[in-house]
Amino acid sequence: MDTKLKYAVFGAGSWATAIVKMLCENLDEVGWYMRSVYTKEHLLKEQHNPSYLSSVEFNIDKLKLSNDINEMANYADVLIFVIPSAFIYGELQKLSATIEGKTIVSAVKGIIPESGLLVGEHFHDVYKIPFENIAVIAGPCHAEEVALERLSYLTISCVDAEKAQHIADQLSSSYIKTKISDDVIGTEYAVMLKNIYAIAAGIAHGLGYGDNFQSVLMSNAIREMKRFIKKRHKMKRNINDSAYLGDLLVTGYSVFSRNRMFGNMIGKGYTVRSAQLEMNMVAEGYYATNSAYLLNQTNDKKTNMPIVDAVYAILYENKDPKKVFEKLTDKLD
Amino acid sequence: MDTKLKYAVFGAGSWATAIVKMLCENLDEVGWYMRSVYTKEHLLKEQHNPSYLSSVEFNIDKLKLSNDINEMANYADVLIFVIPSAFIYGELQKLSATIEGKTIVSAVKGIIPESGLLVGEHFHDVYKIPFENIAVIAGPCHAEEVALERLSYLTISCVDAEKAQHIADQLSSSYIKTKISDDVIGTEYAVMLKNIYAIAAGIAHGLGYGDNFQSVLMSNAIREMKRFIKKRHKMKRNINDSAYLGDLLVTGYSVFSRNRMFGNMIGKGYTVRSAQLEMNMVAEGYYATNSAYLLNQTNDKKTNMPIVDAVYAILYENKDPKKVFEKLTDKLD
Repeated sequence: MDTKLKYAVFGAGSWATAIVKMLCENLDEVGWYMRSVYTKEHLLKEQHNPSYLSSVEFNIDKLKLSNDINEMANYADVLIFVIPSAFIYGELQKLSATIEGKTIVSAVKGIIPESGLLVGEHFHDVYKIPFENIAVIAGPCHAEEVALERLSYLTISCVDAEKAQHIADQLSSSYIKTKISDDVIGTEYAVMLKNIYAIAAGIAHGLGYGDNFQSVLMSNAIREMKRFIKKRHKMKRNINDSAYLGDLLVTGYSVFSRNRMFGNMIGKGYTVRSAQLEMNMVAEGYYATNSAYLLNQTNDKKTNMPIVDAVYAILYENKDPKKVFEKLTDKLD
Repeated sequence: MDTKLKYAVFGAGSWATAIVKMLCENLDEVGWYMRSVYTKEHLLKEQHNPSYLSSVEFNIDKLKLSNDINEMANYADVLIFVIPSAFIYGELQKLSATIEGKTIVSAVKGIIPESGLLVGEHFHDVYKIPFENIAVIAGPCHAEEVALERLSYLTISCVDAEKAQHIADQLSSSYIKTKISDDVIGTEYAVMLKNIYAIAAGIAHGLGYGDNFQSVLMSNAIREMKRFIKKRHKMKRNINDSAYLGDLLVTGYSVFSRNRMFGNMIGKGYTVRSAQLEMNMVAEGYYATNSAYLLNQTNDKKTNMPIVDAVYAILYENKDPKKVFEKLTDKLD
């Protein structure tokens, strides 16, 4: 692959900011699209994102900032989307530039609610991007630790190994180790599902369950994830690789995870609406729960997913968390 | 099996105390052997163990306490050993009573250093106990949460399923759920190995590695554990079951784990000796590291165990933790 490919990141949250930081370690220029004019102006003036990972100082000379998604889509050869799944459909409505022949990378954590598709599938179906031009970035990786330059590992998945390696090389640095994989669909599902399990972990904590139960919950979650992904896309994979189990653990055990925090409030008695208002945001796993549940229900390949079912009952059917979890504990082992 | 079988617990640490508490939920009488005369007198007078889980109050009428291991061995049909692996050989030297025909249950977390054998193997080889009379209790289960009656899950392994179920039934209660397994050897190895990985997690934390790395470490640890156990005793097992992965997670992620704490001190620059003096105890994983390393070295079935090798190099070859972990990070993925 051409080593002079131009990279651009779409989005300005903490994970997007972390990815721009990683790319700046290797590239002379990084494109960065953000919706907010204020964020762009602040970056130009103060060299840091005003709202996320503000401790990260950027060399502005390296950044090509834009509030115009089409300008950025025209500029870049490799487009990395890091927009919350709930907003990506709306953002893509603005996209009129042709992205044929470009590489699309998803660092979005979930399914696009409007289409019910994984981000990679969405680009394939709607924009006719061939699968060999679609890649996924998976953790385990808290953006906050990237800001601190703490050693982290990423998995870049693409059916075209050369492309995966090219992206991996641009993200690698003294504090980022990368590996590649050809399981695009599996890693996308894993990234989506882990947020649901993080909500479950939060609910359990909020209800007063302890560390012993949390470990049982995570042990069941990885088995449930394996069953689900296997039914959706059967191929040889080791579910205990970092991109699946590692990512589940970093999210499920982190007290900083927004999904876990959201679940914790639900477990403590907040309603879904009041928890969302209190957090001033919607946790990714909230949408993922609905998507995963529907995917599993409408599919003839329905699999046994007691944890996803329990979280769905609590978030979408207004069931009592305490009772739902009491029943759930009998289904776990 | 005769439901009137007499149970006795050997040992008076926190895990032994927790198991006595569980048995008292179901049995009218529980035998309890402890070395310390003081502990026995204190229990009789104050209804609680003076040194471990002191918040747990016992109904003394249910306890048959003894400082004589042979008296207790003669009394019980099911002997549950919960003595640290470093001391069990010495304790067993006192045993002259015949234990033929009795059921031996190990809740010991490690290999007997003097024989290099798993506790079950030791009883089989030295006392000629048939394998169908040998069982193992595995977590994930912090004793502290049993004291608080927080929901916990146990796995009881025995090749005789009826025996496993009988033991499971005596341990089950409103806050303890149990399952049975026939993988005695695998669960014993898992219990031993998890303490080494908890030391590794502690070292990483002490050296300043973050949550992202911890999750990669755990993801690699479970794969390493799977390889090792498979080579030692090949059979159909799901390494992500609670008895393996769950137990690893509860120990590796707990800030209360003594093994993790020990590792943390090593990572922060304490010598092995000074960390042991400071903690006023020797973490189980310290011995387990030596045992696992030697087992793997001397065996023709040597497997790739970068984490165990790294911990061994630090604890037994006086290697610099920082350098060893820098090398280790390249072997993980």
